[in-house]
Amino acid sequence: DAKRGDIGNTATRYAEAFFKHMNFDSITVAPYMGKDSVTPFLEFEGKWAIVLALTSNPGSLDFQLLEDASGKPLYQSVLEKSQTWGSTENLMYVVGATRGELIGEVRKTVPEHFLLVPGVGAQGGSLADVARFGMNSSCGLLVNSSRGIIYASKEKDFAKVARQEAQKLQLEMKDLLDQYLK
Amino acid sequence: DAKRGDIGNTATRYAEAFFKHMNFDSITVAPYMGKDSVTPFLEFEGKWAIVLALTSNPGSLDFQLLEDASGKPLYQSVLEKSQTWGSTENLMYVVGATRGELIGEVRKTVPEHFLLVPGVGAQGGSLADVARFGMNSSCGLLVNSSRGIIYASKEKDFAKVARQEAQKLQLEMKDLLDQYLK
Repeated sequence: DAKRGDIGNTATRYAEAFFKHMNFDSITVAPYMGKDSVTPFLEFEGKWAIVLALTSNPGSLDFQLLEDASGKPLYQSVLEKSQTWGSTENLMYVVGATRGELIGEVRKTVPEHFLLVPGVGAQGGSLADVARFGMNSSCGLLVNSSRGIIYASKEKDFAKVARQEAQKLQLEMKDLLDQYLK
Repeated sequence: DAKRGDIGNTATRYAEAFFKHMNFDSITVAPYMGKDSVTPFLEFEGKWAIVLALTSNPGSLDFQLLEDASGKPLYQSVLEKSQTWGSTENLMYVVGATRGELIGEVRKTVPEHFLLVPGVGAQGGSLADVARFGMNSSCGLLVNSSRGIIYASKEKDFAKVARQEAQKLQLEMKDLLDQYLK
């Protein structure tokens, strides 16, 4: 999770560093600088660029929901334009679990792309909403909880408590998968 | 030049890493994730956050010029909103030298802020346009040329040629300063 986003020349070097030298599987990319800041990350077999669409943090409301003259919010313009740059095999989108019904609006625009979903746990997002609004016929979701698990305890039992939190989340996910993917 | 932009929690760690541990003077930040991705970089005395506004690369046209219902382009919304987060002493903006007259539109919205101006040199921006549209009464410009200087020659004379290119640019700047700041 590095959230790069730079001019094409620099983006190409970042892509080489992360994918070739460090063997990362994917990298998060901010879309503000447009196509040439994203496409260099799409040129590595088996690697993924994950473009920020509708993020989980409070500041996501500052610009991502700004509407154009036709009423289309910025995050939708990002989805529509950027999906033409890659495929469902090298491009995913970040959609925060804290965004409720808007996750469904994202899903309408990119029905087949994986969504990387942060914001469950420490940021208070609802896993039930994520499943209800974001799941497609093959799930299509990568749900991430970091602080909710790794900071679950600051005491000596941290490993045990982190394990419990991870299992709890896994069981919730299993129930939702059973419910929606039967 | 690192172009970060992440949720508040992570942004705070980046700010500490760059400003406290590595003693950087400034850091470039993408505005897509909004206020909490930027403000952690504004809390270090004598340090600067440089927010991407209107960048120099081709992809800048993809989203930065998208207009809202009132005809205001995204980069203007970024300028207007983000300038309330900091001051002219801790916040600058990236404005590409390749944007011609639009540099003047930026200058109208942020008359006193420093502008960091890449895109002179390798990207083909015009230093004359930058001065004409972007200068304020105390100059207010930090013009950057990287590849135009460091890649000026690939031969053994690279140090000499880089020096020549840097001097050439410096003399052009001096002429423009004499012309506009008399």
